[in-house]
Amino acid sequence: MPVNLPLIDPAQLHAVAGVRWGIAEVGVRKAHRKDLSVMLLDEGASVAGVFTSNRYCAAPVQVCREHLTQGSAVRALVINTGNANAGTGAPGVAHARQTCEALASLLQCAPAQILPFSTGVIMEPLPVDRIVAGLPAALADAQAAHWAQAAEGIMTTDTQPKAASVQLSIGGKTVNITGISKGAGMIRPNMATMLGFVATDANIDPALLPALVKALADGSFNRITIDGDTSTNDSFMLIATHQAGHAQITSLDSADGQALFKGLMQVARQLAHAIVRDGEGATKFITVQVEGGRTGEECRLVAYAIAHSPLVKTAFFASDPNLGRILAAVGYAGIADLDQGLIELHLDDVHVVSQGGRRPEYREEDGQRVMKGSEITVRVGLGRGTASDTVWTCDLSHDYVTINADYRS
Amino acid sequence: MPVNLPLIDPAQLHAVAGVRWGIAEVGVRKAHRKDLSVMLLDEGASVAGVFTSNRYCAAPVQVCREHLTQGSAVRALVINTGNANAGTGAPGVAHARQTCEALASLLQCAPAQILPFSTGVIMEPLPVDRIVAGLPAALADAQAAHWAQAAEGIMTTDTQPKAASVQLSIGGKTVNITGISKGAGMIRPNMATMLGFVATDANIDPALLPALVKALADGSFNRITIDGDTSTNDSFMLIATHQAGHAQITSLDSADGQALFKGLMQVARQLAHAIVRDGEGATKFITVQVEGGRTGEECRLVAYAIAHSPLVKTAFFASDPNLGRILAAVGYAGIADLDQGLIELHLDDVHVVSQGGRRPEYREEDGQRVMKGSEITVRVGLGRGTASDTVWTCDLSHDYVTINADYRS
Repeated sequence: MPVNLPLIDPAQLHAVAGVRWGIAEVGVRKAHRKDLSVMLLDEGASVAGVFTSNRYCAAPVQVCREHLTQGSAVRALVINTGNANAGTGAPGVAHARQTCEALASLLQCAPAQILPFSTGVIMEPLPVDRIVAGLPAALADAQAAHWAQAAEGIMTTDTQPKAASVQLSIGGKTVNITGISKGAGMIRPNMATMLGFVATDANIDPALLPALVKALADGSFNRITIDGDTSTNDSFMLIATHQAGHAQITSLDSADGQALFKGLMQVARQLAHAIVRDGEGATKFITVQVEGGRTGEECRLVAYAIAHSPLVKTAFFASDPNLGRILAAVGYAGIADLDQGLIELHLDDVHVVSQGGRRPEYREEDGQRVMKGSEITVRVGLGRGTASDTVWTCDLSHDYVTINADYRS
Repeated sequence: MPVNLPLIDPAQLHAVAGVRWGIAEVGVRKAHRKDLSVMLLDEGASVAGVFTSNRYCAAPVQVCREHLTQGSAVRALVINTGNANAGTGAPGVAHARQTCEALASLLQCAPAQILPFSTGVIMEPLPVDRIVAGLPAALADAQAAHWAQAAEGIMTTDTQPKAASVQLSIGGKTVNITGISKGAGMIRPNMATMLGFVATDANIDPALLPALVKALADGSFNRITIDGDTSTNDSFMLIATHQAGHAQITSLDSADGQALFKGLMQVARQLAHAIVRDGEGATKFITVQVEGGRTGEECRLVAYAIAHSPLVKTAFFASDPNLGRILAAVGYAGIADLDQGLIELHLDDVHVVSQGGRRPEYREEDGQRVMKGSEITVRVGLGRGTASDTVWTCDLSHDYVTINADYRS
């Protein structure tokens, strides 16, 4: 069961002018599941993305990067689940290209105007014939109202579809922002996460999109981890269709730019949090705040050391305030000149450690009370400066082992 | 159940001239278990050690470093289990000093001639009074033949005591090398591991010991990982009593020096492997060999990325040749200019990946056959150079979660 993750309500997902989704069942890996999704964009839309830093990046990631670099106007994104098309060598790249060519032919555009995405098992050949054969059915299904279906169509080990949507007003016009994401394991995004798509009909200078998508990823997907495993297929895409009708936003520092950024970040963060809440085997949603660092980077190092520690994560699963494990992670995070005598530790409102040692006032039952909750904030003070950063993660339970020992079978 | 780890046979553990162990039950954490061990050294023995790189290093580690720096002739090592005396602030350091002072008083030597070690739960006050009160009983128990008892006396979550011993001949004299270790969780040594002690009666120039202990750690304890959590208390100590009677070894490059080094490494590596074989919940012993790197360091990065990946470790637990997870770990290990098109992957004798992609000849049943074994070698070729390195680890099972969700309770 995901941690405090309500089921999505299709009626709450605002259509984005200029975007339609079509979904089909093509049997990529298993029969009778929605496993092929096509996102169709009206002419004039702009697209920017960030991708995994994994050097074993999947074939579709390589082709996406190439197509985006060519600067062609993107007309469609095609996503299959059930197979990651990663670790597939040269044939994998050929399969990704073949998918783009087939869809381009149906849409009467150039293959470089198609962006391909895959998610699922690594190192198995992509059943490209079944995908190509299923494209007409996906196109026939295309509707602006199909965001919820698309959220379902990109799932792998996710137990729930993930979507978020907000509306705001810019220049008297309604602007829609809607996104979907997937992911539950192999989650430690290092540019973006295993498939997130956010679209808006805001009218924004396309030149702002690359920096915008990076900033959004840094505030959302690039701050989550489930198991520390950076995926081969991570991709986070931002689409702007410019159809909302207001004057073009030419700077993110303007009032309208800030309003749009805030709305986009709200959606991106909600999607990123949804991935953690639905983390494989997760029973708790944990916020790790590190403050008092010299740089944001060193705060991130400490936050990720805590968030990745199997010992910390199993202690959270057990609701056991075995908090020395957190101190150990702080100590090995990689800050060479860290002074343990300055460390402070809070668990929600409970002040546990002061000047590096357990406070005499600390009572185990207070730690226990916090640990029993399903939403917990760990706050570490480094006592070295004014920088801070936050990472979100989940615990490590028996179900994580069960899910990952059984996946594929 | 540990992986292919025979029970130790006390008769196979050679006494080391000049070393005696005394063990007592003092109730550090639980009653009726051997939890206090004292290693007594004859006058003239030399000691060198390496310690955790964790900045949250325990109080005894701080005191050990200080005493070794002072260069006083070490006469005893005192080790308690049940409490790590880490994350205990200034009172923890005072408790470690108090232990040294009490033992020094009993042995009529200086406190700086005592080295203290602790292992167990972090962030709880050390019951120093019970330890001090138990010292006379430990001293009364001291015998040269008590290595097996000491191996038991330093256990925490270990399911079996760990010891290794060899004899060799140098200059016509018998040289004994015997060691013990402990550790099963919070194992990713980054200088040494959570308590390893190796003693020899070889006559070796004391000036060689610091480099020797570092080289031994680098070939053994610094190449293992169970859960990636670097302990606060890791300590690996090498003791030479010089009593074997042969001419002094003045260079490790001499024939005698090489023979001694080989014997010491055999003991150190056996002790390190024993920790992995008894890893919390371990069902498999996995050797990760990475070759074809530009530097040993980048080979280590890749080997540890594989050895730490929860997805790889759960796949091993399930005997599921979901080998794409290994490729993903290779890709995110941190080599910025890695060319995935040059990667080779072998699982024991099975050639799985060539030029970055799955070989057409590879059959899942061959991977499955290897995965079902209890001793598995993963061999990755990077295709970038001639460097190589090896890391040893275990799988991630339900029992790991059970043990770490229940520890302390």
